[in-house]
Amino acid sequence: MFQNEHSTKSTSEGQKTTIDKQVDFWQWFLWILQEARIVDTNYSVKGSYVWLDWGYKLFKKIYAFAQEAYIQSGHDQMQFPTLIKESTFLKETDFIRNFENDVFWVDREGSKKLSKGERLALRPTSELIIYPMFARWIRSWRDMPLKVFQNVSIFRCETNETRPLIRNRETIGFIEGHSAFQSKDEALMFLETIGKTYSTLFEKLGIPVKFIEVPKWDRFAGSTKTIDGYVLLPGSKSMELFTTAYLGTTFSKIFDIEYLDQHKKKQFAHLLCYGPSIDRILATIIAYYGDNKGLVLLPDISPIDIIIIPIFNRKNKATIIQYSNEIKKQLISLGFKVDIDDNELTSPGMKFYQTERFGIPLRIEIGQKELSKNEITVTRRDTLQKETIDNQEATMRASILEIQQDMDESMRNKAKVTFQESIIDFSERENIDNLLDETKLEQDAMYLIGWCGSEKCAEVIEQKTNFSILGYDYQLKDNKKACLNCSTSGFISVLAKRY
Amino acid sequence: MFQNEHSTKSTSEGQKTTIDKQVDFWQWFLWILQEARIVDTNYSVKGSYVWLDWGYKLFKKIYAFAQEAYIQSGHDQMQFPTLIKESTFLKETDFIRNFENDVFWVDREGSKKLSKGERLALRPTSELIIYPMFARWIRSWRDMPLKVFQNVSIFRCETNETRPLIRNRETIGFIEGHSAFQSKDEALMFLETIGKTYSTLFEKLGIPVKFIEVPKWDRFAGSTKTIDGYVLLPGSKSMELFTTAYLGTTFSKIFDIEYLDQHKKKQFAHLLCYGPSIDRILATIIAYYGDNKGLVLLPDISPIDIIIIPIFNRKNKATIIQYSNEIKKQLISLGFKVDIDDNELTSPGMKFYQTERFGIPLRIEIGQKELSKNEITVTRRDTLQKETIDNQEATMRASILEIQQDMDESMRNKAKVTFQESIIDFSERENIDNLLDETKLEQDAMYLIGWCGSEKCAEVIEQKTNFSILGYDYQLKDNKKACLNCSTSGFISVLAKRY
Repeated sequence: MFQNEHSTKSTSEGQKTTIDKQVDFWQWFLWILQEARIVDTNYSVKGSYVWLDWGYKLFKKIYAFAQEAYIQSGHDQMQFPTLIKESTFLKETDFIRNFENDVFWVDREGSKKLSKGERLALRPTSELIIYPMFARWIRSWRDMPLKVFQNVSIFRCETNETRPLIRNRETIGFIEGHSAFQSKDEALMFLETIGKTYSTLFEKLGIPVKFIEVPKWDRFAGSTKTIDGYVLLPGSKSMELFTTAYLGTTFSKIFDIEYLDQHKKKQFAHLLCYGPSIDRILATIIAYYGDNKGLVLLPDISPIDIIIIPIFNRKNKATIIQYSNEIKKQLISLGFKVDIDDNELTSPGMKFYQTERFGIPLRIEIGQKELSKNEITVTRRDTLQKETIDNQEATMRASILEIQQDMDESMRNKAKVTFQESIIDFSERENIDNLLDETKLEQDAMYLIGWCGSEKCAEVIEQKTNFSILGYDYQLKDNKKACLNCSTSGFISVLAKRY
Repeated sequence: MFQNEHSTKSTSEGQKTTIDKQVDFWQWFLWILQEARIVDTNYSVKGSYVWLDWGYKLFKKIYAFAQEAYIQSGHDQMQFPTLIKESTFLKETDFIRNFENDVFWVDREGSKKLSKGERLALRPTSELIIYPMFARWIRSWRDMPLKVFQNVSIFRCETNETRPLIRNRETIGFIEGHSAFQSKDEALMFLETIGKTYSTLFEKLGIPVKFIEVPKWDRFAGSTKTIDGYVLLPGSKSMELFTTAYLGTTFSKIFDIEYLDQHKKKQFAHLLCYGPSIDRILATIIAYYGDNKGLVLLPDISPIDIIIIPIFNRKNKATIIQYSNEIKKQLISLGFKVDIDDNELTSPGMKFYQTERFGIPLRIEIGQKELSKNEITVTRRDTLQKETIDNQEATMRASILEIQQDMDESMRNKAKVTFQESIIDFSERENIDNLLDETKLEQDAMYLIGWCGSEKCAEVIEQKTNFSILGYDYQLKDNKKACLNCSTSGFISVLAKRY
């Protein structure tokens, strides 16, 4: 099924695993990354990975969804450089403080020190690269709103333990948006639009997300309002999937992003930045839908709809392969993306394992029985249920579409239900003492608690539970609840373990 | 026409230039990069550029062509990291020598020296990153051929003068292929396939290319046979557009890319590497086809087929705009990519200049005359000829397709003829003394000369002419000609100025 049939041999094909996703999520995750050819984690530089064929195909599918969302919401795609001068970096001291331990510094070019002795940083994120250009491009109110996005690699030499796709030192799938507006109101209105855009995007990707307004001390440098998207990896912790931040005029003042308003008065532009990482989106898809046999892909996400596996012996080989190829042609003409695995060196059993590991939504088996009866046997990946359908074009098309749709709906629903079930509402005052006992908490849940908003109460709650307060539940921001620690009225907040 | 209508204001809209492409190619090139919103050259780090909206759209179009060519010729797309450990770098001393003055070295992470004191290099090219992985993946003859490609940024701190798209310090469009084979014959056979793939690719892109076999001293480190593709920028110099190299077993021996052959004997794999840079392809398209009014894009290359410009006054504004939008809808339903520029703040004249600068193949004007007569006026970008056609769906479609096809053919032919005319064949012995006089050479031509292949004769010829011997003309490799310096029989070689 891959271009280089043989290059897939390097992984241990056909081997069943005994790793249980529910028991050891992390071991299972590493197993699936290797077995489904997502990334090779054996590159010699810590926290850097090689994206393999199937992983990169999935990357491209997800990227296409995200790119479309940015373009539809009025962004121009651009691409900004990787290197930042140290002097630019030093202009924003909060920024420096946020990233000071995470920056890779280029000290030398070739055999000599950098010319003029100025070091260059690899971008940990692109504010310092993009905003000086905004200052060049924005002159008057007519130049706004200015909305751009780019897809680039970012570099952060995380001192924490690295985890492929989740905590990298080089992340290839950073798809960040930046925009400039005339006023705070306009900027905040567009922040809402971005929120809706992301809602729709993650709905399409089949990922249930919680929108959380982040407390001050966790916000991105320069940000005055930040709403993050959090997911809960089944059997594991919560993870930030994207961030959306209103930066106010902080960067505009540093980089002189000034414009003449309609009354010819100088004003500073109001900035937003936002972005999900495709690496983490893919990690989430793997975690939400994968099972102990491998990936399970939604029909919308899979690069291939159907894989055909001919089952033959020496006698009927020619006719079975011919029939399989006819079916393949038919299905392609009906609009499906189809591949065939007629490799003679691997057994049908091995091929089944392989398609299951790669998460291909539908598998079609064609053997002697199917040939004689003018049928095909379809197995769906999520339930592994088999169904035999006849090979008449119209009925075949309708049956496959029906299976796809049913699979799509039941997978999405299951994910939503799982997510909902992991969110535990502590609306009852009497539960609070129990909650504050770490040992009684479910480690892979999000708790909705009342919190007054003070750093002091947050500290107490976090210390007793060993969980983190992620922030206010943005979808429930109109509701109130008594603070878990001090009992004064507060917003509903989310308490969880996090990566 | 762009998402951020206003962000295009920053360039000096509507200003005619007095720069003549034929007189000052380089000034013209910089002008067009800015005016057609290809890249902004004002980023603070030397040799790094910001890709703007129209430039990035073109980038994506070209990239899609190249990606398709790699996939069709049997490659899997992967993505490898940016950073390389110094110890890996030191394993290949030829390589180090080739790149020693060009490498950006990361010395520090955060506030401290890199852990274990080992520096990291930013990839100047990916051999040292990819081949250690090949060593992991290749075990037996069954694992080959292994063919991969990736699209990444590369970093070279060129000490020469940088030139946007042509000589960058960060190049975003490096689309490199790497493959491994069991034998030299198999590898060389695939090198031919790659040559043909590139021929087809550049034919599609409308770029006439000369294939040149590179002499030993100009070859890529580790390469034993290299065939490069050269173009001649009109009014300027020759430029290497891609390279294809047989690396033999040089890297296999360094990185232990060994396999068990069919007789269970250990063998080293034979490697190829090859790749064009999209930055340079775009530079070539700009240079070949652009004129003093701006870009001129082949219908296949342009992200937009047609731009509609309604021409209205206060009275007929509503009806003209309505009619224009109807035409737009019609054209979109007919399969064309159409945009409309109904901005009231800019004059039709300014809009004409803008569409001409962006090189959009067809412009449709719709004014009172067109409205009354149920017509549209179509202007093609290459000749600026106007044609009036009626708005009946069938005839409109046919007429536009015809104009597109005619434009496509005549542009491609013109490029071919221009290229052919710049190649001067020195088949006559009596011309040789003239040729050796630098002042009599045309600076923007390629000379086909005889050359015996010796470094000594090359030195003499290069010194006297102040031109470079690019190498043997690969398409004429069966022909012989007396060496320009020593008169012994040699191959036909190409002598030219180069970037």
